[in-house]
Amino acid sequence: MAAMAGKPGSWGGLALRVGQAFFAAASVGVMFSSLGFASYTAFCYLIASMGLQTMWSFGLACLDGYAIKFNKNIATPILLSLFVVGDWVTAILSFAAASSSAGVVILFQKDVLFCRRYPQLPCGRFELATAFAFLSWALSATSALIMFWLLAPF
Amino acid sequence: MAAMAGKPGSWGGLALRVGQAFFAAASVGVMFSSLGFASYTAFCYLIASMGLQTMWSFGLACLDGYAIKFNKNIATPILLSLFVVGDWVTAILSFAAASSSAGVVILFQKDVLFCRRYPQLPCGRFELATAFAFLSWALSATSALIMFWLLAPF
Repeated sequence: MAAMAGKPGSWGGLALRVGQAFFAAASVGVMFSSLGFASYTAFCYLIASMGLQTMWSFGLACLDGYAIKFNKNIATPILLSLFVVGDWVTAILSFAAASSSAGVVILFQKDVLFCRRYPQLPCGRFELATAFAFLSWALSATSALIMFWLLAPF
Repeated sequence: MAAMAGKPGSWGGLALRVGQAFFAAASVGVMFSSLGFASYTAFCYLIASMGLQTMWSFGLACLDGYAIKFNKNIATPILLSLFVVGDWVTAILSFAAASSSAGVVILFQKDVLFCRRYPQLPCGRFELATAFAFLSWALSATSALIMFWLLAPF
């Protein structure tokens, strides 16, 4: 169990964290550069949630890097409890943000046809930001499950 | 660990399942009785996902009732693996459905003001169905976490 791929302080864990932070930052960047995103609550919430995910994952990536460099064990029960709570909270918020943005994007494209009626609306960018958010969530959920699994035997 | 509240075949487990099935069925009922829901993809998806949740939870409620009545142990590793997969799939689908509906409802009410411009749109019902979906998801997520926790030591 202790040799599980992706545990904190391992190369797998570092890769997961870097991936989460990268996709979350990409989602924020793409959404922020889309004209008129601020008129839609779901897209503002996506930026807030992905911003939080970026900070959390970047912080843990730094911690993983430190643990690898100085060969420290950071998979202690107290730290794991902290990681598991943080991971679950950020993963749930990210999924909610990605799903609600996806709901709004599909509405714009298929139901009320805003994308066709208002060609100035950057629907492609909204879609791309949502896709990045789902990728970030997938990696974040993987981390959250690994943390929960590592914590269960304690 | 084996005496954990909410495990399959206990009164707690039965109560969780009945609650999930009740709120999911209520969500389907309220949404189905809302005029014009079929024009919006997110609301159709909510009905599909909550329908699945109702069937799954109702089936497991029957199984829990059977186990309580005949005093059987259904918390075996094989059955738990089955429950954990089913619970996680339904919980994730329910959360995605509830979040995307919430995204669309907030858009209608605050961003594009459809609720004010088209008073025939039953925004109150859309809201109520979404709230029921979130309640059903909360109970479903509780079950999923309990199953995962029970399965972890095996």
